[in-house]
Amino acid sequence: MARVLTPRAEDFPRWYQDLIAKAQLADNGPVRGTMVIRPAGYAIWERMQAEMDARIKVAGAENAYFPLFIPESYLRREAQHVEGFSPELAVVTHGGGKQLAEPVVVRPTSETVIGEFMAKWVDSYRDLPLLLNQWANVVRWELRPRIFLRTSEFLWQEGHTAHADEADARAYARKILHEVYEDFMVGVLGIPVLTGLKTARERFAGATRTYTLEGMMGDGKALQMGTSHELGQNFAKAFDITYTSAERTVEHAWTTSWGSSTRMLGGLIMCHGDDNGLRVPPRLAPVQAYVMVVKSGDGVTEAAVKLRDALRDAGVRVALDDRVDTPFGRRAVDAELKGYPVRVEVGPRDLAAGNAVLVRRTDGSKTPLPVADVVSAVLAALDADQQALYDGALAMRESRTVDVTTLDEAIEAAADGWARVPWSVVGVEGEAKANARGVTVRCLRRADGSVPDSEDEPELVAIVARSY
Amino acid sequence: MARVLTPRAEDFPRWYQDLIAKAQLADNGPVRGTMVIRPAGYAIWERMQAEMDARIKVAGAENAYFPLFIPESYLRREAQHVEGFSPELAVVTHGGGKQLAEPVVVRPTSETVIGEFMAKWVDSYRDLPLLLNQWANVVRWELRPRIFLRTSEFLWQEGHTAHADEADARAYARKILHEVYEDFMVGVLGIPVLTGLKTARERFAGATRTYTLEGMMGDGKALQMGTSHELGQNFAKAFDITYTSAERTVEHAWTTSWGSSTRMLGGLIMCHGDDNGLRVPPRLAPVQAYVMVVKSGDGVTEAAVKLRDALRDAGVRVALDDRVDTPFGRRAVDAELKGYPVRVEVGPRDLAAGNAVLVRRTDGSKTPLPVADVVSAVLAALDADQQALYDGALAMRESRTVDVTTLDEAIEAAADGWARVPWSVVGVEGEAKANARGVTVRCLRRADGSVPDSEDEPELVAIVARSY
Repeated sequence: MARVLTPRAEDFPRWYQDLIAKAQLADNGPVRGTMVIRPAGYAIWERMQAEMDARIKVAGAENAYFPLFIPESYLRREAQHVEGFSPELAVVTHGGGKQLAEPVVVRPTSETVIGEFMAKWVDSYRDLPLLLNQWANVVRWELRPRIFLRTSEFLWQEGHTAHADEADARAYARKILHEVYEDFMVGVLGIPVLTGLKTARERFAGATRTYTLEGMMGDGKALQMGTSHELGQNFAKAFDITYTSAERTVEHAWTTSWGSSTRMLGGLIMCHGDDNGLRVPPRLAPVQAYVMVVKSGDGVTEAAVKLRDALRDAGVRVALDDRVDTPFGRRAVDAELKGYPVRVEVGPRDLAAGNAVLVRRTDGSKTPLPVADVVSAVLAALDADQQALYDGALAMRESRTVDVTTLDEAIEAAADGWARVPWSVVGVEGEAKANARGVTVRCLRRADGSVPDSEDEPELVAIVARSY
Repeated sequence: MARVLTPRAEDFPRWYQDLIAKAQLADNGPVRGTMVIRPAGYAIWERMQAEMDARIKVAGAENAYFPLFIPESYLRREAQHVEGFSPELAVVTHGGGKQLAEPVVVRPTSETVIGEFMAKWVDSYRDLPLLLNQWANVVRWELRPRIFLRTSEFLWQEGHTAHADEADARAYARKILHEVYEDFMVGVLGIPVLTGLKTARERFAGATRTYTLEGMMGDGKALQMGTSHELGQNFAKAFDITYTSAERTVEHAWTTSWGSSTRMLGGLIMCHGDDNGLRVPPRLAPVQAYVMVVKSGDGVTEAAVKLRDALRDAGVRVALDDRVDTPFGRRAVDAELKGYPVRVEVGPRDLAAGNAVLVRRTDGSKTPLPVADVVSAVLAALDADQQALYDGALAMRESRTVDVTTLDEAIEAAADGWARVPWSVVGVEGEAKANARGVTVRCLRRADGSVPDSEDEPELVAIVARSY
């Protein structure tokens, strides 16, 4: 097969761009840093949304929608928040043909405007917890954009909740971390994310604690795949979110926020993609089985249609490619690029022997098998390959993660992967030193892998890496 | 029951606002003309999206996502389009802390930016038709905002397609009109919309033909519920969307666009709402059956939980209200306001006799019936009430629509409903005269109710009304 993409080993960033272009996942938009998500990419995002949304609802949050435009003054109410986001804001100064009395910003995130409404809606302790989520676009002006990873506009979900006390807020921020994000990323995306606590330096602007999920990409770098924040009473005080307790005292609420975005598409590509294109884990894939008519022939299309229908009846997300006017090789390359988990190739020669060919994207295997066995073979392959992709990603992460005991060793190890190093030997000063060399503390974890409550806990492990 | 809303007959606009506030559907946003869609309102929008999206996919269109920000210069390329939208634009002049070299507009609709990409993606006749749709927010600065009906930001789907010739474009614009919009509005929303052709005066800015669906609201006014446009070659020429034909000639494509928005929520309220609140048609309702524990008692909650589970198992979208700490009357009023199609009330007294009470929102009937019969009774009620709401809306429209033969009679009839009047007695001059009196031609139809291709066809009927 001719070389379609720049090989990863040759130039990983170039491979990434090639893949996005050739698999027709996305394009650069006309305004710098914006992107067009093409149908092949958007279908994957829709599957991400469906899986995440179901988990968010099980966690008890309800979807709502808050305005795109936020008065500039709202952002200024929380000091760290405005400091963090000011450099990235897009500002609308004119509307309806006139200059606006007060400029409005295009939301970079919605803590402020949602805080304003939480204050209106929350009255008594009976109104808590208030659990909201929205699916929306947000804008953060990007000077060094890269499709899916850093774009001036991106799509995401942002959850915002208010609680009666810190313990409840913390439990919920962690519930989202594990039961929504980790469960989805491990179980559907097939990415063995590490969960942990961000250091103060890496915390969200306005948060008291930021929990994160970090995935290793094919070049050994880390990608922050999602974050869940405890906001303490910072926004509750800035927006006056108070409630009357059962004891009739007036208290400030405790809030959280948590988000995951189209950045996950970048993570999917860089974790599972190979030199032939994307590999989409079966549970995520919008098209799990791609039935291809190799070329015209007696009863070939009919057999393919029957297989398509049988697979659909078995609950498989399936598409039929009967474009026999387009060369088969070109269609096969495209199917590889798009990463459909399995292909079922139906051609005159094999069919004459009662066979079709099962091609698995994960390992590239091609197996002729009786037409009657296709459905069960596809189902088995989808299960096995979901696991195989996860196992492969885990093996990669483990092979590229080293335990070290000094900061210098950690920085060195980060050239090619991740380092686990005692947080006590890094500390705030070491972190600044690492940052100056392009290396960051991705998260802090306890020795047993659980997520700490504070960076001051003893014997924490820092995960140190280069990152996107 | 105490009066909760301003009665419709007393003050229809006030009733509308009251209902939205008290049923907690939405709030005004902080920036003028924007809105917050609260969970009770957003859940209905999600159901609209799910039903529409399924129909859009059956019609062959694929979802994608295009940027929020559009270079100002794009809009200027199509003369009528820029003229139509300029007064409503929101303009971003600053991004990332700097003044932008070229201001960008926040999309009021996406024909221009999508046209730019269609030009990149379409090469040969084999690439056509290109059928795209996106779910997005758009901004049109509103001087007289009204929640759901006219807001500066709203949510919608916008479809954009490119075709090889005019006949194919027209067939597709009409397919969307009937198979997506009309099918959804009649079959799910339960609103007997009239389909027709807009006059040149009412056409979308840049279209050659605009098809519309008009619903009658509870005050006799018309609401444009959705539109589907043929754009001729206007955008194809402005953005150079060309293709090589089978005969190797280079041709401009023919494009369409079509949209429906959160405005449908306003239509739902104003068509089906009554003086006690919203009435949501069962096929649309996020909660079809609302099981209420009237008050605590021996086995009451257990019986309610069992009914909830049995209804869920029967495929009913069901919610349980066991908040016995909140007075039952308040919860019942809230259930009326939110318009759940059926309530199942489970209380100690009825339960002692083996009964629960079925309350139907559509006609207000309350029927005690054996617990064992609840599921079948709910299923029957949901079917019957879907039909009853449609029948009621149709009866209202028919009773408030009159056939007249002169423009003056039509304008007079529009004070209270709709008029059907020969288009030949209205014409462009009559239309301007009606407009000056706050009355518009909603659409043109053939005598048999079908949708004309041109306003020059003989014997067309004009539907004349006041409108939102």
